[in-house]
Amino acid sequence: MGVHPPLAKAFDPADVPSQVNKILGEFLSVKAEQASDGRMPLEVTDVLRDFLLTGGKRLRPALCIAGWYAAGGPGDVAPVLSVAASLEMFHAFCLIHDDVMDHSAVRRGRPTVHRALAAHHGHNRSPAVADALGAGAAILLGDLALAWSDELVHTADLTSAQMADVLPLIDTMRTEVMYGQYLDLTTTGQPTDDPDRALTIALYKTAKYTIERPLHIGAALAGADDALRVVLSAYALPIGEAFQLRDDLLGVYGHPARTGKPRTDDLRAGKHTVLIAIALRRADEAQGRLLRELLGNPALEEDGANRLRRVLTATGAPAAVEHLIQARCEQAEQALAQAPFPDSVSRVLRELARHATARTV
Amino acid sequence: MGVHPPLAKAFDPADVPSQVNKILGEFLSVKAEQASDGRMPLEVTDVLRDFLLTGGKRLRPALCIAGWYAAGGPGDVAPVLSVAASLEMFHAFCLIHDDVMDHSAVRRGRPTVHRALAAHHGHNRSPAVADALGAGAAILLGDLALAWSDELVHTADLTSAQMADVLPLIDTMRTEVMYGQYLDLTTTGQPTDDPDRALTIALYKTAKYTIERPLHIGAALAGADDALRVVLSAYALPIGEAFQLRDDLLGVYGHPARTGKPRTDDLRAGKHTVLIAIALRRADEAQGRLLRELLGNPALEEDGANRLRRVLTATGAPAAVEHLIQARCEQAEQALAQAPFPDSVSRVLRELARHATARTV
Repeated sequence: MGVHPPLAKAFDPADVPSQVNKILGEFLSVKAEQASDGRMPLEVTDVLRDFLLTGGKRLRPALCIAGWYAAGGPGDVAPVLSVAASLEMFHAFCLIHDDVMDHSAVRRGRPTVHRALAAHHGHNRSPAVADALGAGAAILLGDLALAWSDELVHTADLTSAQMADVLPLIDTMRTEVMYGQYLDLTTTGQPTDDPDRALTIALYKTAKYTIERPLHIGAALAGADDALRVVLSAYALPIGEAFQLRDDLLGVYGHPARTGKPRTDDLRAGKHTVLIAIALRRADEAQGRLLRELLGNPALEEDGANRLRRVLTATGAPAAVEHLIQARCEQAEQALAQAPFPDSVSRVLRELARHATARTV
Repeated sequence: MGVHPPLAKAFDPADVPSQVNKILGEFLSVKAEQASDGRMPLEVTDVLRDFLLTGGKRLRPALCIAGWYAAGGPGDVAPVLSVAASLEMFHAFCLIHDDVMDHSAVRRGRPTVHRALAAHHGHNRSPAVADALGAGAAILLGDLALAWSDELVHTADLTSAQMADVLPLIDTMRTEVMYGQYLDLTTTGQPTDDPDRALTIALYKTAKYTIERPLHIGAALAGADDALRVVLSAYALPIGEAFQLRDDLLGVYGHPARTGKPRTDDLRAGKHTVLIAIALRRADEAQGRLLRELLGNPALEEDGANRLRRVLTATGAPAAVEHLIQARCEQAEQALAQAPFPDSVSRVLRELARHATARTV
């Protein structure tokens, strides 16, 4: 029979999905009850629950909790888990709007939210009207997910000091990822040979949003000082860029069965990535002509995509990107070796770095 | 030379637009500087500034400040003005997404945000690609406005007690208006003869969002108790419904030159309003056939719209709606007569009620 308080557990990322899913599931149950009481449509919470609870790696919540442990993790973990869950709710918002903007039909092997809502409201409507309605309804569902990510923070039982430390970071994270998405969207279809611009997109869209800010937010909940934040950034930014560079490679060369996404979409859309920028910079005249003709060509099929892949490879761009990934992973591991984190945290962050380095093409 | 602190000024709604615009303008200037430092595109803050500062009546900010005065308005007004400005930023988010969902080309006599962004990014792109890009960019711009409305609250220098009182109200307001918009969107094109469902939309989309919650939020900043909140609701909900009912009438019978919006769009879209529900309920067989044929008909032109108007009038629906408006305004004025508000506040709220009653058709 324990009379002493339990010892603080070491960080175990395997616990995160069930902990976060429990909070999200309970939050949505309350929202569904309130909707029912107010004669509001129930498909809103049903569709969001399906989307949230049937996929996703819970990477951002895990990093938020890791950041809290990295800073010593004093006090009760429950409010930290609620903030971690809010990051997943926010991420749902990002993905729902992203799929509307990209006109994507499939996410995590299932219909995207706007497709699901178009089907839900398709009765007695033409396909075109149902599609437009599905897009509009998905915009609103994403808006709700964003508002509810706030509510999860506001109801997390944070102290005034925690609120004062964490709200500015959350605000900054949101502005960064939205600008990153904006830049990604508006450069798509018009890639240039400027790898710096592509790296800026990777920095805001991925390195800061997916890795650095979740770590910072968790650390802020533990009252971390600026020095620890700098140490976390020294790990997070290179590893985050490595992640995006790996993602860009997989978007062109990956096996759809393993990555879960088609590998011609990025080429057909003409995404402005570091891979493409380097290829455009290194291409000779004939290669450049073919790249400009086929990249972002809406009629691109598998044949043309294979020609594109051969030219990209011939410019040496994929090897150069592998080199950039390798350098960033080494930089992150060096930062980690010097960081004053508990073993359980270092282990998880090192594993993440290995995952980004691994060639799964 | 004044050595005494100035006496608290009475509430003057004429001051609100310039006070709120100053806060919004300064906030966006800081955001533009940060974007410039981070090599982010400047059209984001430019377009949002144009949208925010060249139109709008500042009704929600005025009501927020009125709510604060109604509750005695103790302490510094500056944080209240920042929260009031955040409501205007949130409203910009609502309108930007609404225009994307409705495919509207014009707002306040100018191109909508998605049209402006489509034009901005139209260079070297086909019109269809530019339109899709404009819609996506406007979704992100709206998302930023929503995130920035949070930031305006977080940086308003509120006390912990004010934060604890006001954040749940802001969360509730957001959920209500998003559900209201969702219901509005998904019932459009399929109006029924159920006026209660239309009144539910009006309650969430307008009465709570535009009138009740801004008053509540202002009152909460002054530490108001539940009793005062009930008094505010007794005024706000009927007057808010009256506003929406008036808006529905103007959407069908108003003079575009005076209302600033076309008067066939609602009929062509098949909006589910109280006016339409009553007409469908009262229509005889021939009238019902014509209503069902023409309401929500995408090919509806001015001739058909005029036939629709004549049939709607013949059912007695507009007169019934006028009656509902009148009853609600009387209810609101009675609530006001019994309310313990300072004269300057009662005067403004009474003026608002008169504005809703006025037949400007």
